[in-house]
Amino acid sequence: MKSEKISELTTKRLSVYLRCLQTLDRDGIHTISSRAMAEQFHLNSAQIRKDLAYFGEFGVRGVGYQVDQLAQHLTKILGLNLLHHVCICGAGNLGRALCDYAGFNTEGFKIVALFDQDPRKIGTLSRSGVPVYDIKKLKQVVRKEDVDIAVVTVPADAAQKVVDMICDTGVKAILNFAPVRLRVNSAVKLKTVDLKVSLESLSYFLSNPASPVAVHPPE
Amino acid sequence: MKSEKISELTTKRLSVYLRCLQTLDRDGIHTISSRAMAEQFHLNSAQIRKDLAYFGEFGVRGVGYQVDQLAQHLTKILGLNLLHHVCICGAGNLGRALCDYAGFNTEGFKIVALFDQDPRKIGTLSRSGVPVYDIKKLKQVVRKEDVDIAVVTVPADAAQKVVDMICDTGVKAILNFAPVRLRVNSAVKLKTVDLKVSLESLSYFLSNPASPVAVHPPE
Repeated sequence: MKSEKISELTTKRLSVYLRCLQTLDRDGIHTISSRAMAEQFHLNSAQIRKDLAYFGEFGVRGVGYQVDQLAQHLTKILGLNLLHHVCICGAGNLGRALCDYAGFNTEGFKIVALFDQDPRKIGTLSRSGVPVYDIKKLKQVVRKEDVDIAVVTVPADAAQKVVDMICDTGVKAILNFAPVRLRVNSAVKLKTVDLKVSLESLSYFLSNPASPVAVHPPE
Repeated sequence: MKSEKISELTTKRLSVYLRCLQTLDRDGIHTISSRAMAEQFHLNSAQIRKDLAYFGEFGVRGVGYQVDQLAQHLTKILGLNLLHHVCICGAGNLGRALCDYAGFNTEGFKIVALFDQDPRKIGTLSRSGVPVYDIKKLKQVVRKEDVDIAVVTVPADAAQKVVDMICDTGVKAILNFAPVRLRVNSAVKLKTVDLKVSLESLSYFLSNPASPVAVHPPE
């Protein structure tokens, strides 16, 4: 069988595992089995073992995972031991919201610049003190501030143009919130966040409230 | 092996499959194999087959899935053939951004109300024309507007209080953007969106740019 590249879904699961481990650590739990972790956080225990086994032998049979050690490993695997400088292109409601979002501007990430084309916004500061620059100065500011991740929060019809500008700066990772398909060159990693997916998950549960069902067959 | 409940990750994957199928449909593709779908959208073909097999026999061996039929099935499974009325609690940057977010206010979902406690915001309209109500009128408006999903975009320290108010209205599904752990009674489905997960996925790719690796062993 052909092997497949590590998918975005897999890295998402690693992030979820890291969150769970951080929660356990805060709760004073030192070791946990894949089964207990799966039960507590409504995950799939076979999937946990499979995902983590790929990255090395973290667990001890009969004991489980060492919570703090595994959290450290995942932090490193996810590259969160480095500090990433993030810029946000589009200083509208969503751009400003993300800029001030407490969960966004934490360990591993620092938002250093907002960009917009609106003269009324350029030169102002976000609530958290991040300056809004003219989008024309993107390349210059990205270099000066050592930005390695760009977030796109412009309207859908402006997104491709802005993504082209970002690619031109040499930034290799783009997080896009515009609900539109975008093209990038193969050296750039583009990730589009579809916030509607979360609503659809709730919609599923509203349609199936009384029937928690088995979906993962034994492996 | 004990069967596990259908997880949020599974419903997320169903949403992702639905997006892929809609894209294929727009591109004029009528049938597709799980393998081709996995390759085109960087998914795991074994996982696709497993997820979809649970919900019935959608594929035809040697031919693949019928794109439009499978999309219709997933739409129904996800409850998107019904219209959900959504309210947003917190008319700050994030609440307003979501209210006007083109990807949010589409088929299956209609945002009918914003709530806030700030007298300067109460009585105003969002850019898309959604009224901002006094949060004190939550129960009354939820009933009048037949709201079945509530989105929480208040600051972290106000989130629990607002979630308690939402539970009191009888709404059974809550989408929370506040980066904080919240308690709800067991009849309510609470989903917390952690936007940082997406940044972490990019961080992973920045740390591992040259090594697309096999992570899914043959099953």
